[in-house]
Amino acid sequence: MFDYNSFTNAVIKANKELYEYINTHMDSSDLEESSTIGYGGDNTLNIDLIAENIFIKYLDSFGDIFSEEAGLLTSNSNIQIIIDPLDGSHNFLSGLPYYGTSVALKVDSEIKAGFVVNLVNHIMIYKVNGDLKQIDILNNKTINSFEIKNPQIGVFERAYSYPNIARKLNEKKLKFRSPGAVALSLCNAKNYNFVLFVGSIREFDIAAALYICSDLFIHIEAEFLIMAKKQYYLTLIKEIIKEE
Amino acid sequence: MFDYNSFTNAVIKANKELYEYINTHMDSSDLEESSTIGYGGDNTLNIDLIAENIFIKYLDSFGDIFSEEAGLLTSNSNIQIIIDPLDGSHNFLSGLPYYGTSVALKVDSEIKAGFVVNLVNHIMIYKVNGDLKQIDILNNKTINSFEIKNPQIGVFERAYSYPNIARKLNEKKLKFRSPGAVALSLCNAKNYNFVLFVGSIREFDIAAALYICSDLFIHIEAEFLIMAKKQYYLTLIKEIIKEE
Repeated sequence: MFDYNSFTNAVIKANKELYEYINTHMDSSDLEESSTIGYGGDNTLNIDLIAENIFIKYLDSFGDIFSEEAGLLTSNSNIQIIIDPLDGSHNFLSGLPYYGTSVALKVDSEIKAGFVVNLVNHIMIYKVNGDLKQIDILNNKTINSFEIKNPQIGVFERAYSYPNIARKLNEKKLKFRSPGAVALSLCNAKNYNFVLFVGSIREFDIAAALYICSDLFIHIEAEFLIMAKKQYYLTLIKEIIKEE
Repeated sequence: MFDYNSFTNAVIKANKELYEYINTHMDSSDLEESSTIGYGGDNTLNIDLIAENIFIKYLDSFGDIFSEEAGLLTSNSNIQIIIDPLDGSHNFLSGLPYYGTSVALKVDSEIKAGFVVNLVNHIMIYKVNGDLKQIDILNNKTINSFEIKNPQIGVFERAYSYPNIARKLNEKKLKFRSPGAVALSLCNAKNYNFVLFVGSIREFDIAAALYICSDLFIHIEAEFLIMAKKQYYLTLIKEIIKEE
């Protein structure tokens, strides 16, 4: 039997170490580009590699790691760990305080756990074997969240690349934010009217959040992903995209 | 002589009390709409009024308060205190962790101090009589920030309402975020390629951040505001807006 408790604790430890590093040990060279291009295709910053190495250190012993920066490190287990070690790198680089990490756990090709940590407020939303929780990783305290009855906003990640979609959302009077860290935005989808992510979708970005939000309405195609608590918004946004 | 130290301490105390309230005492009724419309024209949430009352309690004795919710409360001093008690209300309402407060101090009709607090990471950026600092308000520790040499992003607040401008930014390959709290975004402008805010501009939104960023290139008209560290981006964005 896979030890989910040990794995959860290892994820928390890795995130705590990364949080600590960012807030006390970082120097300006960590913000420079490294000489490598990540497996996911983005330019890699030194801090991306530091973050990845922290996750590898804590999670390597549980199975095969598949990460945004390094790709698939080994392939000899029925356990796969899918990691985005720094979701929202460019926000982080510019001091825009909206960035975090994403870890998903696959057992026998099926996602069984997802962990998304906001490294600014150190809150982790996670779901393990169907059980959803939210804690402050610095003190292990459970965070009770309110249900948002009347959200005034949706989230549209990568809005800057799709002005035609932005125009149609505006015609339908749908306000949106575009804060720039996909896993963070997706995992809070139940509190927004919708989360829309357009562009090439990589497993690192979405695997944990998809599992965390599996009770919402979700539509995925190769180039876009919509999540919504109400079918109404899912249908509306889908129509907008299809017209493009 | 106006006592700037006492005023700064009062601003910190007010923000600490609000931070504490939000993180420990809040209940779901605080997220409901109040029966009033704020002076600034937005629907007021109960939490907006609670935040405003906290600021009034701590700052009232220093001069006349001019606030987004209540308007100008009194008018009998050469000191005016311009407050946005909750910048990014709709983010707050939806649990999008990017919201804060803004306080500007006018002495004899001239801004002499500006304070912008991010209530998620409890960091205050402030400038008093020309002296710029950044502290963690929970422990009074100074935050040393790195200069960002190569920002990859700009910020475009209210992007959802101006898809034509978004289209032109995209044509120029200018990536942007649209995180949804104007004072927070403006006061970090030196770390982005640009901050663009389009729409009706109210003094509460911008007074503190304008003073904090007075060493950047700034262009303001009735319906838009651009800040940039480099003249190049100021000129480029201005041209884009003028074509509209």
